[in-house]
Amino acid sequence: MPLALDPAAQDLLFRQARTANAFTDEPVTDEQVQAIYDLVKYAPTAFNQQPLRVILVRSPEARERLAAHLGDGNKAKTLAAPLTAILVADNEFHEELPAQFPAFPQAKDMFFSERPVRERSASFNAALQAGYFIVGVRAAGLAAGPMTGFDAEGINKEFLDGDHHVLAVVNIGKPGEDAFHPRGPRLAYEQVVTTV
Amino acid sequence: MPLALDPAAQDLLFRQARTANAFTDEPVTDEQVQAIYDLVKYAPTAFNQQPLRVILVRSPEARERLAAHLGDGNKAKTLAAPLTAILVADNEFHEELPAQFPAFPQAKDMFFSERPVRERSASFNAALQAGYFIVGVRAAGLAAGPMTGFDAEGINKEFLDGDHHVLAVVNIGKPGEDAFHPRGPRLAYEQVVTTV
Repeated sequence: MPLALDPAAQDLLFRQARTANAFTDEPVTDEQVQAIYDLVKYAPTAFNQQPLRVILVRSPEARERLAAHLGDGNKAKTLAAPLTAILVADNEFHEELPAQFPAFPQAKDMFFSERPVRERSASFNAALQAGYFIVGVRAAGLAAGPMTGFDAEGINKEFLDGDHHVLAVVNIGKPGEDAFHPRGPRLAYEQVVTTV
Repeated sequence: MPLALDPAAQDLLFRQARTANAFTDEPVTDEQVQAIYDLVKYAPTAFNQQPLRVILVRSPEARERLAAHLGDGNKAKTLAAPLTAILVADNEFHEELPAQFPAFPQAKDMFFSERPVRERSASFNAALQAGYFIVGVRAAGLAAGPMTGFDAEGINKEFLDGDHHVLAVVNIGKPGEDAFHPRGPRLAYEQVVTTV
């Protein structure tokens, strides 16, 4: 197995890690979320843009507001999760580019002056960052339960201004009883990777 | 530091890992790419869809065809890299859903019968998988050099049929001399994470 990453880390992040649908009552602290962010913030994006925003839904009132926009199968498990994060793309990320990409501060105006271009860039790069974030949740010894079964327009209107859009909602915590569905199959290497 | 992942793995994947712009001549083998895939294939997506496709660009002729569509700053380093992968989204991923998500085979027709819906889903979930793939390259002890500076329509026409679209191009190898630009800043936790 030609991987440099040690097998325990492979298990923690990928091989043994599973999407959780039920959690224990153990809280997820702001310190844990900060440790996750301070790890995954280093992963790469285009022009070092950082469009991902994370809304931690903690108050009972905000949980109810979120659950109202979730698919029926996602409501109860989200209301019962120790923590739920709304992952969001900031379509105005370019305002920060001169500071974030000092090697080429002109990128802001040269490449990102048009909103549709920014939205595509924010969607792709924040999705990359969402992938890193899920890996980071697992790096913290927690389980993630990412979901896309929701009314996106409803969440956008409920929680965001017009410059942001929701990408995913992620429950976070220690897996509880019957947390896991059977793991689904994966495509074979030959179905995914070709050579030219 | 409340992370379960050991510090060496944190360094390998995030803290010390850097985007590389130059590589040694050491080849990247198919066995290494297979080991990367066989690790990151387990990371989660919506409905266990797996829209990511990877095209390994190995032949001199294919390298030239790719370089023709890259931004000027990306051509030489890509032609010199031991391996370049084109990361692609398959907009017809739903054909595989009944096999990949046997818990709810109706998802294919119930949620993904319309092409624009599929394209959005493929773009987001393949981007998540692209993030996992970049982490996997690092897990193999290699450096990734992901790029979005290219003519996407040109690559789509040169390498893909109408059912796929390019997301990113990634050089892969052992970092060479002067491989790294200075690391850019990152947003503070308070700029990214809010609580409701």
